[in-house]
Amino acid sequence: MLGSTHGTLTMTPRQGRVLACGEPTSGGSVHSRADDSDTVGIDVSGRPLHAPVPDLDRFFRPEAVAVVGASDAEGRPNTGITRQLLAWAEHVGARLYPVHPKRREVFGQACAPAVADLPEPVDVAVLLVADPLPVLEQLADTKTRFAVAFASGFAETGQDGALAQQQLAEAAARSGVRLLGPNTNLNAFERFRTDLDGPAIALVTQSGHQGRPLFALQELGIRLSHWAPTGNEADLETADFLSYFAGRPEVGAVAAYVEGLKDGRRFLLAADRAARGGVPVVAVKVGRTETGTRTAASHTGKLTGSDATVDAAMRQYGVIRVDGLDELQDTATLLARARPPRAEGVAVLAISGGTGAHLADLATSAGLTLPTLSDAKQAELHQWIPDYLSVANPVDNGGHPVGDWRGRKIIDAVLAEPDVGVLICPITGPFPPMSDRLARDLVAAAEETDKLVCVVWGSPVGTEDAYRTTLLGSSRVATFRTFGNCVRAVRAYLGHHRFARAYRSPFEDAPRTPSPSYRKAQALLRPGQQLSEHAGKQLLRAYGVRVPREQLCTSAAGAVRAAAQVGYPVVMKASAPRLAHKSEYGLVRVGLTSASQVRDTYRELMDITRTEEIELDGVLVCQMVDPGVEMVVGVGQDELFGPTVTVGLGGVLVEVLGDVTVRVPPFGEEQARAMLGELRGAALLDGVRGRPPADVDALVEVILRVQRMALELGAPPGSESAGGLAELDINPLVVLPRGQGAVALDALAVCR
Amino acid sequence: MLGSTHGTLTMTPRQGRVLACGEPTSGGSVHSRADDSDTVGIDVSGRPLHAPVPDLDRFFRPEAVAVVGASDAEGRPNTGITRQLLAWAEHVGARLYPVHPKRREVFGQACAPAVADLPEPVDVAVLLVADPLPVLEQLADTKTRFAVAFASGFAETGQDGALAQQQLAEAAARSGVRLLGPNTNLNAFERFRTDLDGPAIALVTQSGHQGRPLFALQELGIRLSHWAPTGNEADLETADFLSYFAGRPEVGAVAAYVEGLKDGRRFLLAADRAARGGVPVVAVKVGRTETGTRTAASHTGKLTGSDATVDAAMRQYGVIRVDGLDELQDTATLLARARPPRAEGVAVLAISGGTGAHLADLATSAGLTLPTLSDAKQAELHQWIPDYLSVANPVDNGGHPVGDWRGRKIIDAVLAEPDVGVLICPITGPFPPMSDRLARDLVAAAEETDKLVCVVWGSPVGTEDAYRTTLLGSSRVATFRTFGNCVRAVRAYLGHHRFARAYRSPFEDAPRTPSPSYRKAQALLRPGQQLSEHAGKQLLRAYGVRVPREQLCTSAAGAVRAAAQVGYPVVMKASAPRLAHKSEYGLVRVGLTSASQVRDTYRELMDITRTEEIELDGVLVCQMVDPGVEMVVGVGQDELFGPTVTVGLGGVLVEVLGDVTVRVPPFGEEQARAMLGELRGAALLDGVRGRPPADVDALVEVILRVQRMALELGAPPGSESAGGLAELDINPLVVLPRGQGAVALDALAVCR
Repeated sequence: MLGSTHGTLTMTPRQGRVLACGEPTSGGSVHSRADDSDTVGIDVSGRPLHAPVPDLDRFFRPEAVAVVGASDAEGRPNTGITRQLLAWAEHVGARLYPVHPKRREVFGQACAPAVADLPEPVDVAVLLVADPLPVLEQLADTKTRFAVAFASGFAETGQDGALAQQQLAEAAARSGVRLLGPNTNLNAFERFRTDLDGPAIALVTQSGHQGRPLFALQELGIRLSHWAPTGNEADLETADFLSYFAGRPEVGAVAAYVEGLKDGRRFLLAADRAARGGVPVVAVKVGRTETGTRTAASHTGKLTGSDATVDAAMRQYGVIRVDGLDELQDTATLLARARPPRAEGVAVLAISGGTGAHLADLATSAGLTLPTLSDAKQAELHQWIPDYLSVANPVDNGGHPVGDWRGRKIIDAVLAEPDVGVLICPITGPFPPMSDRLARDLVAAAEETDKLVCVVWGSPVGTEDAYRTTLLGSSRVATFRTFGNCVRAVRAYLGHHRFARAYRSPFEDAPRTPSPSYRKAQALLRPGQQLSEHAGKQLLRAYGVRVPREQLCTSAAGAVRAAAQVGYPVVMKASAPRLAHKSEYGLVRVGLTSASQVRDTYRELMDITRTEEIELDGVLVCQMVDPGVEMVVGVGQDELFGPTVTVGLGGVLVEVLGDVTVRVPPFGEEQARAMLGELRGAALLDGVRGRPPADVDALVEVILRVQRMALELGAPPGSESAGGLAELDINPLVVLPRGQGAVALDALAVCR
Repeated sequence: MLGSTHGTLTMTPRQGRVLACGEPTSGGSVHSRADDSDTVGIDVSGRPLHAPVPDLDRFFRPEAVAVVGASDAEGRPNTGITRQLLAWAEHVGARLYPVHPKRREVFGQACAPAVADLPEPVDVAVLLVADPLPVLEQLADTKTRFAVAFASGFAETGQDGALAQQQLAEAAARSGVRLLGPNTNLNAFERFRTDLDGPAIALVTQSGHQGRPLFALQELGIRLSHWAPTGNEADLETADFLSYFAGRPEVGAVAAYVEGLKDGRRFLLAADRAARGGVPVVAVKVGRTETGTRTAASHTGKLTGSDATVDAAMRQYGVIRVDGLDELQDTATLLARARPPRAEGVAVLAISGGTGAHLADLATSAGLTLPTLSDAKQAELHQWIPDYLSVANPVDNGGHPVGDWRGRKIIDAVLAEPDVGVLICPITGPFPPMSDRLARDLVAAAEETDKLVCVVWGSPVGTEDAYRTTLLGSSRVATFRTFGNCVRAVRAYLGHHRFARAYRSPFEDAPRTPSPSYRKAQALLRPGQQLSEHAGKQLLRAYGVRVPREQLCTSAAGAVRAAAQVGYPVVMKASAPRLAHKSEYGLVRVGLTSASQVRDTYRELMDITRTEEIELDGVLVCQMVDPGVEMVVGVGQDELFGPTVTVGLGGVLVEVLGDVTVRVPPFGEEQARAMLGELRGAALLDGVRGRPPADVDALVEVILRVQRMALELGAPPGSESAGGLAELDINPLVVLPRGQGAVALDALAVCR
């Protein structure tokens, strides 16, 4: 149990990362209470609290490999792949066995008819066959550890393909072979540079081509340790690789290209493992638009989920989502290599006031903080920089000082400022008399400081020596090509370390047994039905969410009695299952202050429902609640992640702007509070136009109670069990002034 | 007068652009009615309707140049500059004259003591002196056309520097010399490549270093025609260069780096000239944040204006604002070179489904449209592409077909689709067997089609032959390095041509003489005062903006009489100058239906104002207006652009979200409509929760009438005249259901 020491451990991930100490083993990870004491731990929703971490050492570094379908016949695609594998095996010193039922020899090497006929069990069998199913079945008794299936035509093609893929998955499970693919390739067995050291990027991509620019980073001196092209993920999935990478000591960051996920929960458990280990995960996730979602689905046949939910889920576990492959490269490189920040302040040092102004503008827009340098520091800098130039931050050195010994003095002086954790030096174009020396000075300073030094080499050419040799030659300087990628990566870097320091796994606190509310709630659910407002509110009450005092009445006399008990003034509402938009029918009356008004109103409501042919279960006589900030809180369902919790600002904000945010349970109180900060109209909760601040603590409490309902009553994805809570909407939840609580005025609950 | 033929002219800017036909001459451009018939045309606000276009031919291509302060003494900065100018003069065949009061010879060339002593008048005098003022004075009788002042220490340093700069500007005006700088350099006289042809980028930057990456584009084969580093702009300013570039036939696009503007109106007039000529202008403008604004001001000492207003002004004139220098390069290059689109649809062609999905997602996010290819086209593509791959758009060719003759067939087939105007082919990494041929095929297809072909070369290395030689070797293919820059540039390209086709100069229709309302309004203004609600509404009424029937009453009996005339139900409000937040004091009462209620209310209002010590000018008895969509419409002031018109959605939207948009007059009806589309809560105007759509036409009419008020009553920037309208707020303006108009319920007017 690491909870109490997380902070320290994640501060120095390279020296003392716990996940790096023990090798992960198949079937269970080594480092959480849940994993240790309860290997089949599930939460109250029936979902796992940990996922096994597959041992993929022999997949990535196999000693013996079989190529099923090996060929040396001219013009066959398999011939090229066989040749590539032979060269690779020689390069890494692996034993490679061609397998083909009809060939005796391939490229001069003896060819066995089947894997079972080989002289030793192999670590990996590469299946270059149109139908991998029979081969996979045959591997059952061969002790083969992994298979890679190239063939396409599975889930990406539709229903029939999905069935065939399911059969593959079942065959793999039966045979004990872990399967990569189908619809994948050999990217895992590319030739990696082995002359680079320091923390590496591990890469997992659901498309080979999309990983290529990251692989090419090695040509710029950036170390890559693994590449898993997961294809359709019939068996091994992105989450498996993420979990595995999170435990590898050489991995400084994981870069992922994701189109869809096979299992939302497994992804979250893997991301949680990375978060606990302080291993940053940077991901491109396709699916911002309907076009992207549709296209991704036809590529590898996976679920993409609601983009807003995926986005929220990633943020909950600190996964850094970026849009472009260029951002993926730049951010993953920075996060893999840079040590934790010594301070959050950013200093900008430029050889031109314009460049400094521009970068400062973009950095501040991105949310970075540029502290004003102290007067003493500015005076120090003015020893070397003319007085008429501003050195407050950005520091404009005017150019000339960087051409001589003063350049390094300036860099060191800025780095010595305690508030500064990051120095960014933009060099928009090469001007060798200045920029060559500046680059050398920056590298030298970076090698000696424990702060982060970033350089933007803005030339579009990129063949200059100062860039190729000086800057890229140092792994201590973070070199970018654009201002935008630099400031976004620095934001991600500071954000990651802030996140990692504060992170506490929500799975540790996830409820495992139903709360006392659960039994009461069960009795209220009606399979397949929408509950009446009154029943919906009873459900809320069962979970401790405050609702107005109210009674359901079926006569005018009853209503009058109820009003006396509830207390005047009262609100009266028609109550019926499946009755939405009550106000539009005139079925909500507020501010009734006397028995006669209640009696008259009862009759009027009856008249309307008779005219509109609405079948009532009665009239609600409710306590009238003071005004406050109107919110909506609810439970939704996501195809990937199951029940979700949504929070929004009520009225026109949710209606017109959809000012709503979402979280995937389980999550803690800090996430419930963070939700409120994400609402565009969040300022309403602070009080506007002289109104008092709202009771945010009470609101957070309601969110957490609704989460509990989602976990206990909302069935997980794939579950077909009837009677669970499919959907819940509290609208409005009136949040009263601070200290006065929050009250659910209406509730709509739908059961599955 | 070109109004009626604009459409045609801007459709084919390179063949028939009017601005390119006649050389612009100093003192007036050649192509608008205002310019032709009325060389001192001013609008009703007293501001010019056109700006002179300086003849800068001899500035950019001088035949004789004087270097004042020339030096060949070792180690002096002037020595380096003199050497650079000598080399440049030899390169371009200009005559260069060193000038120095104390030297006889510089680098072996005779040195004159002063410019007046030179054998001929020079086109450009380069002033390498610490105080350029005396030299500038001396140039008066020398027929020198231009001077470039290097010295810094002027407006960028504060008040004293600004005064010194003002003296420079005055000296330049007296001497008839046009001055570039101070605080600038020699970027205009860099060595431009002359071996490139086709439309070029013209560059204007307020910082030399910030232009360097654009200048370096020439190394990638992209033509640059001019570079104006404007520095502090004591005389020549960004707008002058923009106007000049807009008339040069070789200029395909203008790229600008702007920190602040010297004169907002001149910038708009220059942008208007570019828009009329169909010349795209792409700009980085610093000032998104307070940090950027402050830093920019300390760099060149210019006004940055409110960023939202600058942003709006740029959009009004089609200036494409980008954030990074990399975007500036990519977007300006595309817009300079690409012919107008044949269609707006974008097709994505990828050698991997993942790459296609990712690019499609980003393109759609950016607002591009990917039309689904016709069934016939898909069948055609499936001749060459396996059936299991999706070719609907994005087209996934699976890789192999691009390695042979099929690759070109596929490209041509996609380009032949009528809906497709742009083809984007992302190649994320080099895989020579496929990517080399693909690059060649794309170039060959681009040379033959009149549609736009874009390639994203995603490799971070960038030294590959297919990129450097094949792709960059063709000016017909637009080559990008990132998906993001590609989709943003394509969006800008389609947007520019859509804008240019529809553009009509607002200066043509700008009012030149006061409207009949003007005299009535004048009588209502009170210098230095805030008007009472009643007076404010009379001002609105003078300009034809509807206000409720209302009377200002000073007795209970008068109020009862007024109510009878206005018609029940009525609203009663306390009216006083400088009385805001009336509702919070309980000084607004609605829905009064009888004489007795009016009489009682009058007394209550009097009691409150007595208690609160508010000095009333009376009580307004107003017609009660039906509910509608509440908006705010107003007039503000911008330090750069003078009076502006703002429009927002009322209530919580403007209060909490600041859901407001702005325009700089003059603008036409289409801009007033566009404003509404920019509001986040715009859907409210369409009707939500079953409400009827609002009377948008009436709202647009109010915006245009308020614009008229801003033009006639709001004094332009720099004007100190009292009595004008400093500020106006209509809040709320109730927009009734369609056909029923819009009514200003309250108005706050402040006079200067």
